[in-house]
Parts: sequence; structure tokens; C-alpha cells
Amino acid sequence: MNAKPTRFEMIKQRHTQTYQTALSQGKVDEQMQGLCDYVISTKNYYTSSCCSGRIILLEKRSDRKIDNFFHRKWHREITKEELEEGFNEKIKGKLWFKVDPFILHIGCADLEKSNAILKAMKEAGVKRGGIMLAEKGKFMIELQGTERMEFPAKNGEEELINKKQLLKVLKEANELVRKNYARLEKLEKTFRKNLE
Amino acid sequence: MNAKPTRFEMIKQRHTQTYQTALSQGKVDEQMQGLCDYVISTKNYYTSSCCSGRIILLEKRSDRKIDNFFHRKWHREITKEELEEGFNEKIKGKLWFKVDPFILHIGCADLEKSNAILKAMKEAGVKRGGIMLAEKGKFMIELQGTERMEFPAKNGEEELINKKQLLKVLKEANELVRKNYARLEKLEKTFRKNLE
Repeated sequence: MNAKPTRFEMIKQRHTQTYQTALSQGKVDEQMQGLCDYVISTKNYYTSSCCSGRIILLEKRSDRKIDNFFHRKWHREITKEELEEGFNEKIKGKLWFKVDPFILHIGCADLEKSNAILKAMKEAGVKRGGIMLAEKGKFMIELQGTERMEFPAKNGEEELINKKQLLKVLKEANELVRKNYARLEKLEKTFRKNLE
Repeated sequence: MNAKPTRFEMIKQRHTQTYQTALSQGKVDEQMQGLCDYVISTKNYYTSSCCSGRIILLEKRSDRKIDNFFHRKWHREITKEELEEGFNEKIKGKLWFKVDPFILHIGCADLEKSNAILKAMKEAGVKRGGIMLAEKGKFMIELQGTERMEFPAKNGEEELINKKQLLKVLKEANELVRKNYARLEKLEKTFRKNLE
């Protein structure tokens, strides 16, 4: 007779199904897939949500998050032409240029297993992260990269930064994207070496 | 006869002394002092390091953190004239303009006490934070605000954003600083209501 599944096993089972559905629908970021595939394959961990990092043009029509719209979004380095095209298009609110680092949520069986993630995180040089939820059978860790850029580029039709200067800044932004993906790769290697 | 102090009590005692020394030397950010004073006064918590949030001009002479220098630093909103003066001064590397949100490290007696911080953090609308270290007698939580701006403004003598546009962006930066301090105030109130 099989033992009754634990709370953690039931939650992991549910998230594994959600992940496989997302995967089959092409909704998992390519640069994050290797890491997520590995985490899901372990006994003591699962991923619940993740983003590999990105460059976005975010349109803010008010201060509320619900009024923010992705004007453009890329999970990779971008060209001057791509940025220019997005920047030129009319918007209604403010337009922010952003480089967001990766963000990753990992469910863990217990405190001991959570500590193994925190240790791996430090070994991989990931500086931001911690246990956000600590209940019996439900430990949740959030990890985040630190390669960021964010500033307001336009306010309606008014350019807060002109196009020529925006394109200069893009070089730095693409460099951050490269560093972000390199860190993510290192994190995946460290996980594969250390987690069970 | 007094009981032998626990590991947590010894660590808290040490950090309380460090905090009082910093306070007497004027090294505690004014906007953070109320919150830190309260945390130190509790039985089950202490603060180990904190920054109330700031506007900085950061000179990066290489990619290594050791080669970053505070060209200018303000723990408050700033004027156009202050920004202009700092922006005009010659630098050797790259100059980044940054709004950093508050960051706070809180030591907790155990997992249960840590959970009370995570709960208060959510109640105050602070979105980033978690338990970074979980050892017997030594639980450490990091909390961070989300009001950020960061971009490269100069590369040596080359202006990546011109002064006129930088001053336009400053309005948004000061707005972020105001929001950051309002969130910190809310966090302090929530702590005072909920922590023991």
C-alpha cells in the first residue's frame, strides 16, 4: 500500500503539471528552461514562477500596477532598430525603459532543503534572495539577479531622453542582459551540482 | 542565579552596542532611526545594517564593486542645482545616476519570530524580502523597497544623457524618494503594531 502523499508532494505534483502545460504552450523563457527542468526533476523542489530577465518598454498610464502595459518586451539583447521602433510609437502615459534581472520562485520541502538553495545561491554569486514563506510543507524562496536599469524615457510626447542618447545607453543595457544570463547559467550549474 | 544567555541573546547584545555606537556618531540615517530604535527595543529582534534609501551619483571605474565610488550621495530629495553641480564635475570612469530604495537587515530569534516579520512586511506592502540565513539562534531577514531608478549618465566626458534631460528625469526621481520614505514609515507603524 502506498503512503498518503505529504502536503509538499501534493503541491509539487500540482506545480509540475502547471509547468508542463506552460512548457507545451511555449510559455517558459528559453534561457530559464534548463534550470526549471532540473528543479522540477528533483525530489525536494519545484518552480512556481520565473522570468529569465528582459528588456522592456513599459507604458505607465497611472501609478497603479494595473495601469502598466508592456509596450515592448524582449528576453534577449536587442538592436538599435528594434528599440527605435518601439520608442517612436505613440503612447498615452509615461514610457519607462527597463532591464529587469531574472526572478525565480522555488518551492522547497522543508527548512533544511531551503537552506541548500540559499547556500547554492551564495555559491553562484546571486546576492538577492530569501525564504518568503515558511509553513509546514510549504517553503517558498525568491531569488533575483541584480543587473538592472530603469528610467523614464518619455512622458506622452515629451522626450525625457532623446533618441540619440537612448541608443548610447542601449549598449550598456545589452551588456547587463549578457551578464544576467551568464549569472543564470552559473546558478543552474550550481543547482545541478548541489540539489537533491 | 541568572540563566546562561542564548546564542540569539548574545548576538542581539553585540548588535545593540554596535547600533548605539553608530547612533552616537550620527551614522544612522534619520528616516530609518525610528524604525531601528523600535526593532532594537524588542525582545526578539535586532537590526544589523540598514539604509533608508538615497539618490546617488556612482562613479564606476571598472565592473568590480571595489572600483565604485560615491561621487555624490543624498538621503533625501535633491534640487536641480545639487544634481547639476555633481554631474558637471569631472570623473574618470562611468557615472550612474541611481535612486536606491531602503534596505534593512533584521536578526530574529527563531523561525516563528521571522514569520512575524514576513507577515508585517506583506501588511505594509513591502514586496521584496525574505529569510537569508536560517541557523539555530541566528535568523536573518533582508527587506528592500522597490522604488528604483538607475542608468548611466556619463562615460568619461561623454554625456549619455544631456543635462537638460537629466533635470527632467530628476522630478521623477524625487517622486520615487518620497514614495520610498512613505513606505518606510508604513513599515515602521506595522512593526510597532505587530512585533514583540
